[in-house]
Amino acid sequence: MLYVIGLGLSDETDITVKGLEAVKKSERIYLEAYTSILTIGKERLESYYGKEVVIADREMVESDSDSILANADQINVSFLVVGDPYGATTHTDLVIRARELNIPVKVIHNASIMNAVGACGLQLYNFGQTISIVFFTDTWRPDSFYDRIKENHVLGLHTLCLLDIKVKEQSIENMARGRLIYEPPRYMTVNQAVEQLLEIEENRKEGVCKPDSLAIGCARIGTDSQKIVAGTLQELLNVDFGGPLHSLVLVGSRMHEMEAEFVKEYAFNPESFNTIVKRDYVH
Amino acid sequence: MLYVIGLGLSDETDITVKGLEAVKKSERIYLEAYTSILTIGKERLESYYGKEVVIADREMVESDSDSILANADQINVSFLVVGDPYGATTHTDLVIRARELNIPVKVIHNASIMNAVGACGLQLYNFGQTISIVFFTDTWRPDSFYDRIKENHVLGLHTLCLLDIKVKEQSIENMARGRLIYEPPRYMTVNQAVEQLLEIEENRKEGVCKPDSLAIGCARIGTDSQKIVAGTLQELLNVDFGGPLHSLVLVGSRMHEMEAEFVKEYAFNPESFNTIVKRDYVH
Repeated sequence: MLYVIGLGLSDETDITVKGLEAVKKSERIYLEAYTSILTIGKERLESYYGKEVVIADREMVESDSDSILANADQINVSFLVVGDPYGATTHTDLVIRARELNIPVKVIHNASIMNAVGACGLQLYNFGQTISIVFFTDTWRPDSFYDRIKENHVLGLHTLCLLDIKVKEQSIENMARGRLIYEPPRYMTVNQAVEQLLEIEENRKEGVCKPDSLAIGCARIGTDSQKIVAGTLQELLNVDFGGPLHSLVLVGSRMHEMEAEFVKEYAFNPESFNTIVKRDYVH
Repeated sequence: MLYVIGLGLSDETDITVKGLEAVKKSERIYLEAYTSILTIGKERLESYYGKEVVIADREMVESDSDSILANADQINVSFLVVGDPYGATTHTDLVIRARELNIPVKVIHNASIMNAVGACGLQLYNFGQTISIVFFTDTWRPDSFYDRIKENHVLGLHTLCLLDIKVKEQSIENMARGRLIYEPPRYMTVNQAVEQLLEIEENRKEGVCKPDSLAIGCARIGTDSQKIVAGTLQELLNVDFGGPLHSLVLVGSRMHEMEAEFVKEYAFNPESFNTIVKRDYVH
């Protein structure tokens, strides 16, 4: 059996009891560690499980999935995923591959940012499509997600923006020279995301993410050090959210009064928050 | 401390280890049981926790929340919610009320249908806003959610439809006579939801949910008896999905090839599914 197990958002105790039971009866345990991270390292998981945990990097999952699946028709193998198993497309690939090999698969769900973002005070059913913001480089500054945000914006819906994670990336030089030297991991901050959004707005001028548009920066949702700050994009530009992972919610104009009341608790400046809510949101 | 704890989707072992630890140190435990249900009853939870569990019905949570919160500034109280705590607006009310009373609140997240629906094979970031379909009565046949589905449809996005739950409802006669007699609980099936959607389409004729539109019926997601069937609305009309809870996903035209490949495994009729995918979806 292949168990695909969500670990939730924070530490080793966010696994479900059902998930932990599956881990305990597995002969091999893999941890997918390139689409998200826990607040703890694999050593802590290993001591909690009393078992070895193998880090599965992108290359292993995408190109060598059969090694993960080896013998899984006869023994139990656990594939651990931060958040929920269906949060990233690569896990879907693994499930499809297991099916092809007639390996039974059991998915054990958990919280992911896709539902835990409700902690920011906005209702989940008022969110439109989710978008991802990637790191700009000097030569690559993609802005197609602006069109997706605009689609939500026109409907008055909120947008959850997932922020880029770069783990085990090679520099262009090292890649060109075939050197397996990896850059330190990078996690996009709310500040960087806001900066990029404002740059795109400056170019496109379609009024989708203006300096005084309301947004909610979220850091380490579901952990004890969770930090949520609501304010204008301009205000969020300089708020220190601390360590990863961050995400950003752009507030849609259909925001209800009850949502606004909850979000206000997180406002950077409650007074200006209220003024802007009354002027541009909640009708 | 008020712990608001998600129970996940299936049985007593879907609670997280962190959630179970909080329950074990709580003096009072409430179970919210009107916006969703587990596959097990409160007795099973009580024997698993070794503690009494009080059912919190809608009236208690909405009108008598202070009894739930009594002393929670000095003792631990757990409020259990099927799925994730932020799945329903009433839990938000409880958190706001606790804040007013200066009671510390800790939310322990879990899977909910909002993220576990990824099990149907469609990617979560391709979903638009989520809608709720309520039971039609002879005199009340609301169709405003059709407009929301249309907004997603125009953008090519998928729509998660949450289906109505009627728990502890009184008949109009019993209510008029002030008799506290409750009707048996009712849970909308995929079939009933599809029937209502086709009726609205018949009236509105805007091409949003036609008999040959693709959809995915989901029952008991995250449980061992999970059932997922993809097909046209016409096909899903007569599929037996078994017991509650059901939900329905309307497929948007932006479906990727990889999504289609995964969903095809659940197709009622893989051949016609492929034909319709090629004709109306995946471009």
